[in-house]
Amino acid sequence: MTDLVLLSRDGDIATVALNRGERMNAFNLAMWDALEEVMAEVNGDAGLRCVVLRGAGEAPFGAGADIAEFETVRADAAQARAYARRLDAAMEAVADCPWPSLAMIRGACVGGGLELALNCDLRVCGEGARFGIPINRIGHCLPMPAMRALVELVGRSVALEILLEGRVVTAGDAKDIGLVNRVVADAELAAEAEAMAGRIARGAPLAARGHKRLARRAVDPRPLTEADLAAAFEVCDSADYREGVRAFLAKEKPVFKGE
Amino acid sequence: MTDLVLLSRDGDIATVALNRGERMNAFNLAMWDALEEVMAEVNGDAGLRCVVLRGAGEAPFGAGADIAEFETVRADAAQARAYARRLDAAMEAVADCPWPSLAMIRGACVGGGLELALNCDLRVCGEGARFGIPINRIGHCLPMPAMRALVELVGRSVALEILLEGRVVTAGDAKDIGLVNRVVADAELAAEAEAMAGRIARGAPLAARGHKRLARRAVDPRPLTEADLAAAFEVCDSADYREGVRAFLAKEKPVFKGE
Amino acid sequence: MTDLVLLSRDGDIATVALNRGERMNAFNLAMWDALEEVMAEVNGDAGLRCVVLRGAGEAPFGAGADIAEFETVRADAAQARAYARRLDAAMEAVADCPWPSLAMIRGACVGGGLELALNCDLRVCGEGARFGIPINRIGHCLPMPAMRALVELVGRSVALEILLEGRVVTAGDAKDIGLVNRVVADAELAAEAEAMAGRIARGAPLAARGHKRLARRAVDPRPLTEADLAAAFEVCDSADYREGVRAFLAKEKPVFKGE
Repeated sequence: MTDLVLLSRDGDIATVALNRGERMNAFNLAMWDALEEVMAEVNGDAGLRCVVLRGAGEAPFGAGADIAEFETVRADAAQARAYARRLDAAMEAVADCPWPSLAMIRGACVGGGLELALNCDLRVCGEGARFGIPINRIGHCLPMPAMRALVELVGRSVALEILLEGRVVTAGDAKDIGLVNRVVADAELAAEAEAMAGRIARGAPLAARGHKRLARRAVDPRPLTEADLAAAFEVCDSADYREGVRAFLAKEKPVFKGE
Repeated sequence: MTDLVLLSRDGDIATVALNRGERMNAFNLAMWDALEEVMAEVNGDAGLRCVVLRGAGEAPFGAGADIAEFETVRADAAQARAYARRLDAAMEAVADCPWPSLAMIRGACVGGGLELALNCDLRVCGEGARFGIPINRIGHCLPMPAMRALVELVGRSVALEILLEGRVVTAGDAKDIGLVNRVVADAELAAEAEAMAGRIARGAPLAARGHKRLARRAVDPRPLTEADLAAAFEVCDSADYREGVRAFLAKEKPVFKGE
Repeated sequence: MTDLVLLSRDGDIATVALNRGERMNAFNLAMWDALEEVMAEVNGDAGLRCVVLRGAGEAPFGAGADIAEFETVRADAAQARAYARRLDAAMEAVADCPWPSLAMIRGACVGGGLELALNCDLRVCGEGARFGIPINRIGHCLPMPAMRALVELVGRSVALEILLEGRVVTAGDAKDIGLVNRVVADAELAAEAEAMAGRIARGAPLAARGHKRLARRAVDPRPLTEADLAAAFEVCDSADYREGVRAFLAKEKPVFKGE
């Protein structure tokens, strides 16, 4: 086992901590593999209501791929494609997480670090965070899964601005172009992430999981079927829905059990 | 007949006023039915050039569905689906309105109220307006038509932020994330809505109707046909187009007749 | 030959200057033809790394189509369709440019001028720039290629706001709604455009060209093929990629040759 990616759990909220702070959380291949493994555990834990991804301790969220190993593991197109398959497995494990996911971003969120953040549902960052994909400096292209995630979030023109200029921008700029949902003072970052995760975890879990699925279906342009239209209502046969309506009318706090 | 939704007309501008202010414009089933009926009248009135949807008098735009009736009319999945068919009929009547539509939003614009605003072409609100879909508090999922409208307007990540956290946000935040086109002081809301409707109504009506159709076609990813490409030019055979070019070159105000 | 559109080159950066300043750069048919011709030359020049489109000298970017000739060349639907084919040829030559393109916008960027800017990859403007498509004043509809470009950049609702109200908005508003990537003081516009073009030109050229292609593929909703997924990695067999990785690890500036 590796300690490159740490998993902890506090009640129904899991924390996945990227733990290569001595290298500014530059991702090497072993780290992508470790992330995939940790996310498999997270994704199978039906007791969870929210997952927070972050740098361990005061480490930055992620400074990008570790280029030091590129000359051995990513030296040509064939190696790069093989490398990408392992990275993609980690990214897909994050994107496919059934529970709401939140990237808590301190410091550098660059290259593969930004791609990882893009695959979370929400992104909150500290004012000192920095964002970019300066991949044009080494002559690489952004692989298509990351490109699709980026253009879905910020549109094609802003994506090209980021990629063609290769700049690393501030948290304020990142908020302005839609890369992050929220910016707070660095000193308040952990508290804000905790508050967001708490709000998410207090909502009805079946609704949260349903919203993730429905939102993904909604951006798929294929015509909606009758099953697609009915999907949102399945939850109305749950005990939690009855509890939610009852508590609302009684002006009480609902107690949701995820069933 | 009901007075839950009021229709009035001032020249070529219609006003549709949601009139259940004593319940903060919480929408019950009868109100969705009334809205559908009123919009059928609006949509068939070819003399109109703009439609303003608003709360009647000082009433808020809409506080969401009236949960008080959920235990009888929306108690399980089958009832919820049936309820949704009636709500969807009202929403589609708004979305399919051939004339430009403007939501003038004062106070709460929440849940079904926000969904209604999403189905208008433009949204202007006062500074005191509040926006959200805190549906996770009762354990319901946002139905797919509303989800599609929401993600089209603000993207998947902001949609999930709204739904997963369940917060109700300010007018400024709503502008920031793209939920509304414009925010003005509450005291200036009616005047601004009137000015917007006036600008719209003074433009050529055939162009306005064409722009609504063309914009909807443009977001449909299917390849464009020759007919799609030619559609924008049909208007060039109209008397209004000749009048528009003549008036522009003569530096006069054009007089458009919609033909 | 015409001097309606001027082409110059400074190293690996080309400048395409719209040169009908005495008419505020109102585009007539001859100008669209000239732009197509100039862009054909630009697009075939593999030594280029960036193209800047701008008004010549202090001329505005473009005040829209020259309506003075509409009564002879665009008087009805058939003429408008024929006119559009020539305009579209110019727009497509800009959109299909293999090298990164940057619109440097001073003053009016209206109607066909804005459509031209939409077909560039990036847009930077001075604070005095003004944006709009007040086509409803002459009773014309925005043709579908421009509509698609507009809704891709700002979404359907903001597109309809622009078209239905027919307002001409400030640079600040244009930034706010996503029409431009950056706003700077008018006095700094040329320097900022030069800096942006410089950053783009110093990046690896194969990556830049690849990013343009990949970003366009990414917004096409058809499922990705294995070839689509592999496309980003072709560049990893290039000498520039080896140079980029070597220079990064040696903490040197890379020297890219585009091969």
